[in-house]
Amino acid sequence: MDELPGALGSSGSLALRLGQAIFSVASLLFMCFDIPFYSYTAFCFLATVMGLLMAWSLTLAMVDAFSVLIKLPTRLPGIISLVVLGDWVLSFLSLAASCSTASVADFLIHSRSSFCEGTLCARYQLSATMAFLAWFLTFSSSLFNLWLLPSLNV
Amino acid sequence: MDELPGALGSSGSLALRLGQAIFSVASLLFMCFDIPFYSYTAFCFLATVMGLLMAWSLTLAMVDAFSVLIKLPTRLPGIISLVVLGDWVLSFLSLAASCSTASVADFLIHSRSSFCEGTLCARYQLSATMAFLAWFLTFSSSLFNLWLLPSLNV
Repeated sequence: MDELPGALGSSGSLALRLGQAIFSVASLLFMCFDIPFYSYTAFCFLATVMGLLMAWSLTLAMVDAFSVLIKLPTRLPGIISLVVLGDWVLSFLSLAASCSTASVADFLIHSRSSFCEGTLCARYQLSATMAFLAWFLTFSSSLFNLWLLPSLNV
Repeated sequence: MDELPGALGSSGSLALRLGQAIFSVASLLFMCFDIPFYSYTAFCFLATVMGLLMAWSLTLAMVDAFSVLIKLPTRLPGIISLVVLGDWVLSFLSLAASCSTASVADFLIHSRSSFCEGTLCARYQLSATMAFLAWFLTFSSSLFNLWLLPSLNV
């Protein structure tokens, strides 16, 4: 079997997972650190999804680091299927959360409400951008693992 | 080759495409018919994406109807790849548009603005629901065609 960059257990996958973790933590920090966010559904949704994505990608980053260090790839079809499914669900959720946050932030900016004082709404926009980048990396991971799946079942 | 229900050229695919067309037309009507929508980015985005999805699914419904009537499935790998790619892009766009619209409608309802008079915001929510259902059918179509793809290349 060829070594596929980005599939579970490779150093490419470790880089992707670390990228996801960094972007989701950045999105959480921009959203939650010292500003009000819990009164809007879209912002709470983003915080929940980014928390889930952070836990998921840090867990899989540890699995990848273990595989890379021990040089023993753990590639059972059942595990890869589970990882692909989880990646897909989380990528849809993070795309939905980032678009919701971006549209509400845009609405707040254009309605010139008193809510957007100083750099508050710019922070919401930055948070949505980070969530979008996290979506992109999660989706890449899921595609790499999906590509690997048929070669395991044969 | 087994007949895969839902792949391009089958009657299952025709049903899926007609469903997509119906839901996208319903979403467009709920959003645009006789109410203001063009002053909000999220609502314009939804109208654009649903217009694209309507054209795309009606075109492919005609291809499917032709294939079913003539009993001559047109399954070149290049065409299927193009259909899968288009379905994926449109499914991501429609998910993003439906979540954006839903979050802005929710925000308008909770902020009790004067904008939400009568059943206006309920119509935006219905439009987002229809777009979400259109996303689900588009995503199903893309999965069926993706499943068919490896058997054509072998």
